[in-house]
Amino acid sequence: MSNKTKYATARAPIGVFDSGVGGLTVASGIEGLLPQETLIYFGDTEHLPYGDKSRHAIRSYIANISTFLADRGCKLIVVACNSASSVLDDELLQHMALPVVNVIDPVVESVVKNKDLRRIGVIGTRRTVRSEAYSAKIKAARPDVELLEKATPLLASVIEEGFYDGEVARLVLSKYLDGMDRMDALILGCTHYPLLKNTIREIVGDDVLLIDAPDVVATSVKSTLIQMDLVSDQREDHQFFVSDLTENFQEMARLFFGSSIALTEHSLSEH
Amino acid sequence: MSNKTKYATARAPIGVFDSGVGGLTVASGIEGLLPQETLIYFGDTEHLPYGDKSRHAIRSYIANISTFLADRGCKLIVVACNSASSVLDDELLQHMALPVVNVIDPVVESVVKNKDLRRIGVIGTRRTVRSEAYSAKIKAARPDVELLEKATPLLASVIEEGFYDGEVARLVLSKYLDGMDRMDALILGCTHYPLLKNTIREIVGDDVLLIDAPDVVATSVKSTLIQMDLVSDQREDHQFFVSDLTENFQEMARLFFGSSIALTEHSLSEH
Repeated sequence: MSNKTKYATARAPIGVFDSGVGGLTVASGIEGLLPQETLIYFGDTEHLPYGDKSRHAIRSYIANISTFLADRGCKLIVVACNSASSVLDDELLQHMALPVVNVIDPVVESVVKNKDLRRIGVIGTRRTVRSEAYSAKIKAARPDVELLEKATPLLASVIEEGFYDGEVARLVLSKYLDGMDRMDALILGCTHYPLLKNTIREIVGDDVLLIDAPDVVATSVKSTLIQMDLVSDQREDHQFFVSDLTENFQEMARLFFGSSIALTEHSLSEH
Repeated sequence: MSNKTKYATARAPIGVFDSGVGGLTVASGIEGLLPQETLIYFGDTEHLPYGDKSRHAIRSYIANISTFLADRGCKLIVVACNSASSVLDDELLQHMALPVVNVIDPVVESVVKNKDLRRIGVIGTRRTVRSEAYSAKIKAARPDVELLEKATPLLASVIEEGFYDGEVARLVLSKYLDGMDRMDALILGCTHYPLLKNTIREIVGDDVLLIDAPDVVATSVKSTLIQMDLVSDQREDHQFFVSDLTENFQEMARLFFGSSIALTEHSLSEH
């Protein structure tokens, strides 16, 4: 590979997608750790929430979004969505034809290699908890670990409706976390939850390790890029697409990305 | 009409539909006021929530559900859904080919004829408030009325996630109702909200008239049946259908109907 080709490929964007705008927390985590990387984000707001959709439907959305990101020259795809991550298999990964980082495996890996963690909590949507996306993989690698799982379905709405920072979040979290005691670590199993991190910290105290997808996934993206020798040295403008644009998604985007960004509507459906 | 035909028609069921199981509060209100009536309920959980769908899509769902209810011999259709009620027009009503009672007009009528009500609050989903479904009709009939509208999007999730009775509901409601003072009446503009009525009463005090779709719609159904001479004298078993059945909907159905009922899955989509 000539140096020219190498730089062109390394400077290619990273594709990040989610069913909505919650995955922007992951995009923001990647930007924080890898400020020279260009991001292309796709939020499939037209089909939101994936949690209610069949496995077959979600797989077809992923295939379409991957084609969209590949056509824009992405060098890597980050699946910043728990429901989408849980339906990835070899057939789909082969179809995606690019290196893929999902939100579940890096979290599981970071947990199982830390032998100090023996009692681990997982919170997430009803679907994430029921699917045992995290717990089955953790148990397989570390049968000694005790898992405390709790579906916390109201939290995503609490955040989306603007109550993430204050009394409502504190009260709802206290109710959900009641009984999840003596944890060594707590996995925040939903891309929305980083916005509640401070409140969760207040409730569980300083001794519990909070495991946050954006941090862990960003680290995984970094090591994947280093491994493939595809670290960029120069950033271009990020691009943010959603398949259905409303004012509300525009407001939430600022919340989840941490700064004001402009969303562009781009539907992948055949109308 | 012979007496025999008359009784057969009067004993026909009332069809009630909603995008989900929230409309069961309306079905329950009808059962309370008209215990001799048989109900056929259809919750279009497969397409839930209607609030996110286009006008065109909602109209096509209504047409399909109306055909389903007509095929089962219903004598009247109750549209127990704000989003569906707001897209009804003459063309669609003609297609439905049965008398129709929606959730918005009876509430508006009960408000505008009460001249003591001068300052009226409306709470509902973001879509209901933005669409001015209630306020435009009230203002047209009573320009002297002062309207206080507030989107309260977290309330439906609070109820669906089981926090309807206690601290969380009280805190969230206090925040939403803060500033909506000196009201003569408050319209609970979402089929879920009857479950919060006691808590709302505690917050707003005894002097505010709470206007509740299930009560008002049941009264409207009764007067429509009397007018058409179609009041039943004998009830058969109610039937409850949903287009996508999950355990969660089954649990919520009990909550919204007020007693345990069995849901049957029946999809109207062509797969």
